[in-house]
Parts: sequence; structure tokens; C-alpha cells
Amino acid sequence: MGNVAQRLSEIVGEPHLLSGAEIPADYASDESLTGEPVSPRYVVKPATADEVAAVLAAASEQRIPVTARGSGSGLSAAARPHPDGILISFERMNRVLEVDAVNHVAVVQPGVTLSELDARTAEAGLGYTVYPGEMSASVGGNVGTNAGGMRAVKYGVTRNNVLGLQAVLPTGEIIRTGGKIVKTSTGYDLTQLIIGSEGSLALATEITVKLHPRLAHGVTVLAPFNDFDQVMAAVPATVSSGLAPHILEYLDALTMAAITYTAQLSLGIPDEVRDASQAYLVVGLENREAKRLDGDVQSVSELLTELGATDVYVLEGSAARKLIEAREKAFWTAKAAGADDVIDVVVPRSAMPEFLGRAREFAAKTESGVVGCGHAGDGNVHLAIFQKDPAKRASLLHGIFALGMELGGAISGEHGIGRAKKEHFLELEDPVKIDLMKRIKQAFDPAGILNPGVLFD
Amino acid sequence: MGNVAQRLSEIVGEPHLLSGAEIPADYASDESLTGEPVSPRYVVKPATADEVAAVLAAASEQRIPVTARGSGSGLSAAARPHPDGILISFERMNRVLEVDAVNHVAVVQPGVTLSELDARTAEAGLGYTVYPGEMSASVGGNVGTNAGGMRAVKYGVTRNNVLGLQAVLPTGEIIRTGGKIVKTSTGYDLTQLIIGSEGSLALATEITVKLHPRLAHGVTVLAPFNDFDQVMAAVPATVSSGLAPHILEYLDALTMAAITYTAQLSLGIPDEVRDASQAYLVVGLENREAKRLDGDVQSVSELLTELGATDVYVLEGSAARKLIEAREKAFWTAKAAGADDVIDVVVPRSAMPEFLGRAREFAAKTESGVVGCGHAGDGNVHLAIFQKDPAKRASLLHGIFALGMELGGAISGEHGIGRAKKEHFLELEDPVKIDLMKRIKQAFDPAGILNPGVLFD
Repeated sequence: MGNVAQRLSEIVGEPHLLSGAEIPADYASDESLTGEPVSPRYVVKPATADEVAAVLAAASEQRIPVTARGSGSGLSAAARPHPDGILISFERMNRVLEVDAVNHVAVVQPGVTLSELDARTAEAGLGYTVYPGEMSASVGGNVGTNAGGMRAVKYGVTRNNVLGLQAVLPTGEIIRTGGKIVKTSTGYDLTQLIIGSEGSLALATEITVKLHPRLAHGVTVLAPFNDFDQVMAAVPATVSSGLAPHILEYLDALTMAAITYTAQLSLGIPDEVRDASQAYLVVGLENREAKRLDGDVQSVSELLTELGATDVYVLEGSAARKLIEAREKAFWTAKAAGADDVIDVVVPRSAMPEFLGRAREFAAKTESGVVGCGHAGDGNVHLAIFQKDPAKRASLLHGIFALGMELGGAISGEHGIGRAKKEHFLELEDPVKIDLMKRIKQAFDPAGILNPGVLFD
Repeated sequence: MGNVAQRLSEIVGEPHLLSGAEIPADYASDESLTGEPVSPRYVVKPATADEVAAVLAAASEQRIPVTARGSGSGLSAAARPHPDGILISFERMNRVLEVDAVNHVAVVQPGVTLSELDARTAEAGLGYTVYPGEMSASVGGNVGTNAGGMRAVKYGVTRNNVLGLQAVLPTGEIIRTGGKIVKTSTGYDLTQLIIGSEGSLALATEITVKLHPRLAHGVTVLAPFNDFDQVMAAVPATVSSGLAPHILEYLDALTMAAITYTAQLSLGIPDEVRDASQAYLVVGLENREAKRLDGDVQSVSELLTELGATDVYVLEGSAARKLIEAREKAFWTAKAAGADDVIDVVVPRSAMPEFLGRAREFAAKTESGVVGCGHAGDGNVHLAIFQKDPAKRASLLHGIFALGMELGGAISGEHGIGRAKKEHFLELEDPVKIDLMKRIKQAFDPAGILNPGVLFD
């Protein structure tokens, strides 16, 4: 492998190649709660698509595994490197190349953080509307996992907001897909195929994202419910209302207690209301006109009350922001509380009550803890799993994933499969589809260098 | 081939197999203006996914080409059969299986028409928002071409509105992708890959589409402009306004004259305004509240006037509906006027003036006529081409397609490549991407039976 080091050093420049003990521990994992960190053989930090292409061409030639890394905030170990492989860190390709206010798009490098993109688009009165809850996440990483987040209920997930890519194939060719265009029917949609492929088909080196006008006025409505089924029934009713909330979340009572305690957040809910509440609905509304927003808040408050909310709290300014931030940090709260895994099954909205009810039964049967919250409008249920015993946990997860699929859903709504959920995916998914996906993988990556061990064995 | 007929007859039942002279002329083409009709060897009309699977398995075994047909309203000859092949007509698989008002989805068979789906969803106060301008089009056909239409500016194209498929692989296996879920990050997105593949990767036998609440109030605003560049500049400004029009079309003066004449449509525009107009903008607005709609109409009228509109006409009821219908029939008007081809290049919105200006220069140089209209909000320019000489026409089209790509666009926004534009596609598209697409095709269809001659040779 001596030659490899030299070649990589020639490609990215000696200061941008790390190996052996030079490699900081941070590169050995993402934020997945399961599995051990694995240090790669090499870390390279390319500055251009041409450098990425040269690294991949060299890796294909010598059949060396390659894993891509954005900010390392993924939850499925898709950025956990191969011990004999190269980790490509996109930290130097971190620029917003263009904010195009006429076409409502931004063109960014994969390593740019959501936080940076948010700041740059704000200057133009525009915004990138994918908020997966971690603003240090990179856009490239989001493309890899098809990240979602709270605003997906109105604006969709990453795949609905990426219009084009420059991407490097594992064989070292650079292609461009899509562009500053909102539609195309010109051959197979390679953009959509690469999005969500968890770094296993091609590596995005430039991403064209859709921007939306920032709406001037917004509030957050918080509604406690004493009955879990009522919360769930309120979700489709709120979606159907035509009020187009940009946030529609539920939190079970334990999660609400944990996040508000952690954030030292006082929401002004009387003790007796809080004590009786089984779950909460959080509804975000926005409008370009304050008067219309007021009207919508009135409508949603009446609707939620009709649907069984015991009270309705309209939060504005810092209280609203803090609640949303606390919700976004639910993962960290669960991690701090000792959660052994965090999963994000997606089911049809109407199936949420059955899914959660039966998941709780599984939990009781395996003496595990299962608490959660979720993107209710999307049917995307985030559950923190408390079960130390790996065999019991695996059996619990298997049951929950199988249940989600039985109800017409999928193992992951937005976190991805990665390495963390691969065994369950391979066991539960239709083998015809797995074989087809493997043939697609082969069509992109004949040498099998891109992220081996992710999705497939 | 005697055995083939017998086997097909056993699969679909004797009354649902046609061959030779029994095959009506209609099955020999779609609505593409170029190329000659081609009668297939067999027409089969399956009733179930299992029958489709059995037909495809038989075809793969014997390497017989298979072309799928919905309503035959496509414009790129993707449904034109192979002379030695089987045409699968989905006319018997034409049912809306379910309108699910809780999850806001409908599940339909591929042969269902948009008109039928519209009627069925209306009963639930919901709607499927893809309106490609031909309500006799089938949902399956729309999946094949990734159909768009006027409302795409607000609601997106077919790929943004299909959540899941049951699809038959050319090898005869039946798979299910996605479902009644708005997001998933669980392996490669096969739904998105099959959409827009023009019947070359897999055949959809069941389609789960997203529905939206029908908004009670709508109007159409018509604004004439004396300056073509001003119309084009008004488009991004209208998109940026936050008024979220669901229709944003431009029509050049000749197209407006032709469609209003054909439809015997009087819009109340004074002669002197009409005579000075170079182009028109049509803006559709909708709202769940009449008062808000009034406010939006006021805002958009002021905005368009500021942007150079010489007048603003607010159309409601039948006048509005007739104008939209006349616009939807622009293809038929062009066909009746003797157009030799109709194309639909897509470019970034900001590039429309340059694209149209230079396309006109090409037209003048080749002594061709080029008139049009388009989904302005999408940068999707529909041009009717008048040039009888095939060589001159090919050269003109090549120039226009190359120009669209040079400006960051693509050959087709929503009609597809099919057989009609294949040569241009293969000449102009990056050969690395063509090769990759061919390998993907191979991954789905090792025997190469599905729609050979579409997209690739």
C-alpha cells in the first residue's frame, strides 16, 4: 500500500492525506449509537471534483474501499470507514458557490453545512427548507441519506429539494445530472438514484438545491392531549385542513419531559394539564402576511380543540424557537439518557396508532424501553430504544421493522440503512428488490469500492 | 411464433389477444408528429399484474420486444410498438382501486385516465394535481414519461406526486416500491428510477399517487405584454413573490391568436392592446378563502403592471376555464395548423429569453417557423416547429436541443425522448451518462425486451 499513499498524496497534496496514528478519532464513526468506531487506512481531503475523481480512479484500479464523509452527523453508520479503506472527507469542499435568486437555487459543494447555507440564502430572502435537526450536517451528507426533518411535511425531504448534481462515478468519471431546472424527462433520473444511496453509487461534488422565499411570519402551536389515539387522529385532520403547516410533530409525554428538562424550557403549561397529558402535537405555521397567519392560528386552534386537545398554546419568538430546538435535540437527549439505539420507521400516517401500540407491546414483551417523538405529518416515527442486551435488542428491532413494513411502511424514513440496520434490511426486504439493487450497484461500481458493507454485505 | 400466440392467449384469455389484421390502426402509434405508425405482431390486454408478469416472463424467455401503452396520448413515440413485438395495452387495468382520504393518496391501475381519477378524487374533496393537458391520458403513461403540465409550477411533475408502485420487471417478477408514505430512505429509490423511464425498465401495474385538498376559490389572470423580454423577466418575479401561482404560462402572440381563434374564445381584450402585444402571461391563483384570493389577485395585478403588462384581465368561471382549456389544446392547434414537430426543451427560468431569442435565429436561418408557449414558471418551452424538409428540420432541432443543454437545460421537460428524439439525445448527451444508463437498463432487463429502440438503439 506504500504506492497508494504516494499516489493519494500526489492527488490531494501531502498536507491533505492522513494515515495511521495521524488520523483523529473523529473520523472513525458518525453519530450512530451502535457498532464500534473503525479507523480507516487513509483519510484524504480533496479540494476539487478532479481530485475526487483521481482518488476514485486509483481506488477502483486497486480495489480499495472508499467511504465518503460530510460532517459525520449521520445516524446509520454509513460514514463509518472500512479498516482497509480510504475515507474521503469533504471538509475542504465547503463553499456555497452561488445563490441564484432569479432561478431560486443555490449551488453548493458537498461539505457545506446547513448552517452556512442558511446564512448565505437568508441574505437573498430565500431559504433551503430541509432542516434535519442538525445544522452542522453537510448538504453532501444529506444527499447521501436523503435527509428529512421537521419541515418535510410542507417542503419535502432532500430528494424533493435537490435539482442537480455534479457527481463522480467510482470509475473516476465526472458527470452532471439535472441542473437549475425543476423538471426533466430526458433519460433515467440519475439525480434521484444517487440521492439516498448512502455513498454507494457515486459521490456528489456539487449540488444544486431548490430555494424558497422566506416567509416573514411564523408561530408554533403546542397542543397537549390526554389520549394518544386522539393525537394520532388529529394528524391527518390537520394535514387535510389546507392550513399547510410547515411543522407537524408529536412528542410522547416522556420525550416532552426529557427535552424540556434538558433545555430548561418553561412552556407555561399548568401542572395539572401536563400531568394528564399523554402526548403533544406541535404545529408550525408560517405566512407572508401577519394577518393571514393570525387567521390560520385561530383556525388551527379551533381545529385542535375540536379534535380533543386539552389546551392550545401559541408560542412566538424565543419560546417557539426554543421548543423547536429542543425537539431537534431529542436525539441528544435520548443519547444522554442512555438510549441504545434510535430508529425512524416510516408508516402511512393512518397507521401510526397501530404501529405505536404494537411497538409498545413488543417493548413490554422484551422488557425494553421505547419512547419517542416523530414527524407526525410524514408518518415518520422516531423511537429511542433502551435495551442493553444485543440479542434482545436485535429481536425487538426486527419486530418493529417488520411491523412497519407490514403496515405499508419502510425501515427508515430519513436516517438511512447504512451499516447499522443492514442485517434487518437484508432479512426483511424482498430479495428480488435486493438483487435488483445489487445489479444497479454493479452498473455504477463494477469494482465494488464505494462504501462496501453499507446496504449490502 | 405460433407457440407465442398460444401462450399469450392462455395468459390473457383469447378475447384479449389480437394479432395481424385484427389489430386496429390506433395501436400503431401515439400522438408523436414524426415517424410512421408501426403495427405490432400482437396486442395483449392483461387484466392483472400476474398476467403482465406472465407476458413479460414469456417475452424475456423468447426475446420478444414489449411496448406498453396507456391511452396513446404521448408525444415522443415511446408507445409506438416494435413490428416483431407485443404491445401491452393497459386498457382493461383502468380502475381507481382506492381513494384514501386519511393518507391523502389514491391507488390506481395504470390504465386509469386522469379524467376518471379527477372525478373520483373530487368526491373526497381531493385532487391529483398533475394536469398534462390531456385528461384522456393514463396515469401509467404519465409515469412512463414523467408527465408535467400547467400546475407543475406549484405541485411538481409526476415524479413529485407518485409515492409508490407495484411494477413488473422484464424478467417477470412483481415488486412493490414506496407506498402510502411520503418519504423513505431504505435502499435505492426504485420508484423514482422507474418513473420517466418510458417503459424501458419495468411496467407499473399499480400506482400510489399523492392527493391534495381542492381549494375552493380560483381565478386566472391574463396579462398582455408589448415586449417579450419583459414577459420573461416577469416570470421569476412572480415566482419570487410568494403568491404561489398554480399556473404560470406564457403564450406568444401567434399562439394566443391561434388558440383563441380555434376555441372561438373572446377574452375582451381591445384590438389596440391585442395588436401591440408580443406575448401574454397567464397566472392561475387559488385559495381556500375567497377573501385571501381577492388579496392575491390584487397583489399579482399590481406586480404584473409594475413589470410592464399593458393591462391585466381577471378571468373567472367559464372564461377562465375556456382559456386554460384552449391553452391545453395548443398541441392540437399546432397540429391542425400543420406543425411538423412539437418539442418541449426545459431551461433555467432565467435563460428563457436567450433560449427563445436564439431559437428564433436558428428558425430564420433554416427558414423554419417556430412558435410557442410554455410552462414559464418551469422554464419549459413548448415550440411548434414548421419545416417540411426532414434534413433542415433535424438540423434545426439539433441546434435548439444543443442550445437548451448549453444553457443548462435538457432536451425534454415532460414529453420524454422516446423514439422521436432519440438520435438527438444520443448525439448530445454525455456518453458516460448514456453508458451508465445502458448498464442500468441491463440491470433491469438482461434480455433487452422492454421497449427496445426507445432512448437507446
